[in-house]
Amino acid sequence: MSGILIKDCLILPMTGREPRCYRGSIGIVDDRIAFVSEDPVLGERFRQEQGKDVREIDGRGRLVMPGFINIHNHAAMTLMRSYADDIPLMRWLNDYIWPFEAKLTRDDVRLGTELAVAEMLLGGTTTFVDMYWRQEAVGEVVERTGIRAVLSATFTDAQFADFEKDLALLLERYADGRHPRIQLMLSPHAVYSCSKEHLLQAKELRERYGFGVNIHVSETKDEQRMIRERYGMTPVQYLDSLELLDARTLAVHCVYVDEQDIEILKRRGVSVAYNPQSNMKISSGIAPVVKMMSAGVNVGIGTDGPCSNNDLDMWDEIRSGSFLQKVASEDPCVVPAYELLRMATVCGAKAIGREADLGQIKAGMVADLQIIDLRKPHFYPQHDVVANLVYCAKSSDVDTVIVNGEILVEGGRLRRFDLPTLLADVQQRVEEIVRR
Amino acid sequence: MSGILIKDCLILPMTGREPRCYRGSIGIVDDRIAFVSEDPVLGERFRQEQGKDVREIDGRGRLVMPGFINIHNHAAMTLMRSYADDIPLMRWLNDYIWPFEAKLTRDDVRLGTELAVAEMLLGGTTTFVDMYWRQEAVGEVVERTGIRAVLSATFTDAQFADFEKDLALLLERYADGRHPRIQLMLSPHAVYSCSKEHLLQAKELRERYGFGVNIHVSETKDEQRMIRERYGMTPVQYLDSLELLDARTLAVHCVYVDEQDIEILKRRGVSVAYNPQSNMKISSGIAPVVKMMSAGVNVGIGTDGPCSNNDLDMWDEIRSGSFLQKVASEDPCVVPAYELLRMATVCGAKAIGREADLGQIKAGMVADLQIIDLRKPHFYPQHDVVANLVYCAKSSDVDTVIVNGEILVEGGRLRRFDLPTLLADVQQRVEEIVRR
Repeated sequence: MSGILIKDCLILPMTGREPRCYRGSIGIVDDRIAFVSEDPVLGERFRQEQGKDVREIDGRGRLVMPGFINIHNHAAMTLMRSYADDIPLMRWLNDYIWPFEAKLTRDDVRLGTELAVAEMLLGGTTTFVDMYWRQEAVGEVVERTGIRAVLSATFTDAQFADFEKDLALLLERYADGRHPRIQLMLSPHAVYSCSKEHLLQAKELRERYGFGVNIHVSETKDEQRMIRERYGMTPVQYLDSLELLDARTLAVHCVYVDEQDIEILKRRGVSVAYNPQSNMKISSGIAPVVKMMSAGVNVGIGTDGPCSNNDLDMWDEIRSGSFLQKVASEDPCVVPAYELLRMATVCGAKAIGREADLGQIKAGMVADLQIIDLRKPHFYPQHDVVANLVYCAKSSDVDTVIVNGEILVEGGRLRRFDLPTLLADVQQRVEEIVRR
Repeated sequence: MSGILIKDCLILPMTGREPRCYRGSIGIVDDRIAFVSEDPVLGERFRQEQGKDVREIDGRGRLVMPGFINIHNHAAMTLMRSYADDIPLMRWLNDYIWPFEAKLTRDDVRLGTELAVAEMLLGGTTTFVDMYWRQEAVGEVVERTGIRAVLSATFTDAQFADFEKDLALLLERYADGRHPRIQLMLSPHAVYSCSKEHLLQAKELRERYGFGVNIHVSETKDEQRMIRERYGMTPVQYLDSLELLDARTLAVHCVYVDEQDIEILKRRGVSVAYNPQSNMKISSGIAPVVKMMSAGVNVGIGTDGPCSNNDLDMWDEIRSGSFLQKVASEDPCVVPAYELLRMATVCGAKAIGREADLGQIKAGMVADLQIIDLRKPHFYPQHDVVANLVYCAKSSDVDTVIVNGEILVEGGRLRRFDLPTLLADVQQRVEEIVRR
């Protein structure tokens, strides 16, 4: 790794509460942004200082912004993409998803994650938060592919022993920032699938290792009803009663949260993952994102797993997320375009405790960037580049992706992947899994 | 023009009520599909018959399906794409859209339409229904670019004189199938913007020329309330009372229609244009598409104009259209994937009276096709190619587009356009319009 100079590009740094977009240059040294400036003299000086090793990227006709942080995913479920759609939730789980999942080996998880990472990188996602079994296999893929990830050792009551093994492996390899692109979290799957005893064990582990906790909360009406019957509380109240909610907690979905729940989320500093396409596709409902944000809750964006979405396209996700809130609120003014981009970058960084060095373009921050090619009919005219991005951009408009200072996608092509081989392997593997 | 042979591709012909996808070949002679077959012998025979002039397209790794029929658009409004977003409807219209529109010349409409056609073709749209002023300028663009269109001479009370001039030009050039890719309709803008007298004049013109009528109906709660106050009826009942509803009528939006309205739409054989992203983005509401389709109403898909969407991407539109119905119905089973593709092809063809020769892949039908490149991470694995298309495809996956037997897009590039020049012209023009 050495220097990269992105010259003469539009820069959307995502550093303010209001959009600001300007023409300038960005210098990268190793894994960090060295400078961002409108002054061409600084660019030239950087080029000279870096000498012949500097890699120059022509930014004309392009826009640079932070890479997306997809804060909720079950990446390996790419293997079940379009395996079962348009059928009722319990039949979907019982007859398709769970039997398929039961057959997955460590290497299947590795392969499915590799496919997911390929798709995410091509669409400008530079960090993902994963919640799934065998996270150490996910770690192997993250190490090799160059993406950044939060690995969440995951359990339900039925899989607690496997979780303990997975966690031990993760701790050995990735604890205490041992890997520059991997951080750890704990994932009790949900309050309905984890006993009080196991949730309290998770709390103890969290304290011991300083982990964040990442859990599905109030995704469906059924969950809400079940937890109320079982504990006489909402899922949020129940988690709060166990002292599991704090600023390191990432509450996923929060579709059915009332004003009291929102007040608790705000008070405890919990971040929320909004997964609009999954919530729509499997008919979970519409998360009260406008209310949560007005109350000051930090809300980021996740795609959820590729079996309930069915892709990992953050550009599509933010657009759907905006449209859904506008129609649900009967107000076209809610969650304006720039707010969506903040959710997918700055707020995502905050949700994983990285607001200090991730999710914005600023000197000293980690160089996780995406460069968008604006020379497309759907980006013209350019009355408002932010609205054009949120309402018109496709993941295929992402030309270049840089993670931790390394160019992973260039000209819309993955540099560290042999894509034809990967796709063929995936197809062959799922055919074999179905036969198992 | 001569023969085209698409060899060894996946074919999704859209000919049945249930999905059927198979590997085969398609032959095209002039503007028509000559044969579709699973039998490779037929492909070889066709190649020999056509001789050296046959153009061969390698279909491996690709899927061929009918081009999309976008049944509601105001194409020239690309010029106002992202000009004003996230603001209240009446301020949007009064302070931004209408003052901008008032300045548009014939050549602005031509240029804006050209940009729209470029975007539509790249995304697999082969036919669009336009509703806007100066349709003869739109006709010029359609003639030159190779796309297929339904031009709708459009009026409100304020613009009736201009409409009469526009209609005269359209009749002169395009009446009676004078142009193979252009057909005509009449567009009273809406029941709140057109007097009863003008609506009856439109009815008379419809009878005289045998036109279909294409009109905004029940888009907003306000419209619904206003018409009820003015006429004591719903917009659908009012149009029915004027005898303006029949099988040649295309009712756009129908967000606020009750069971009685749906019964009328069904009885009269009216087709409906569902515009999910526009309805969401400007908070109009959620059209009762599931109810309309269950009642047997023909529903197709439109993007609406690019200022309330903000793009003309039918792939994005069908996905949003599906997700919105699933979340609104609290039922993940409604409008399954294949149904969405039918709406965007077969049902669209029916909405413009072309079910006999458009919207399906069948020998004898017009050759309006799109070829999708499936060799992308988001299309793998291929458990279900139809679900993969509806839930994962991006317009950028469209590799080749054929309209009326002519290849207009190849390898994702437009053949009849000078795109850099067009984009630069558009940008320069809108800057000049704003200053006017």
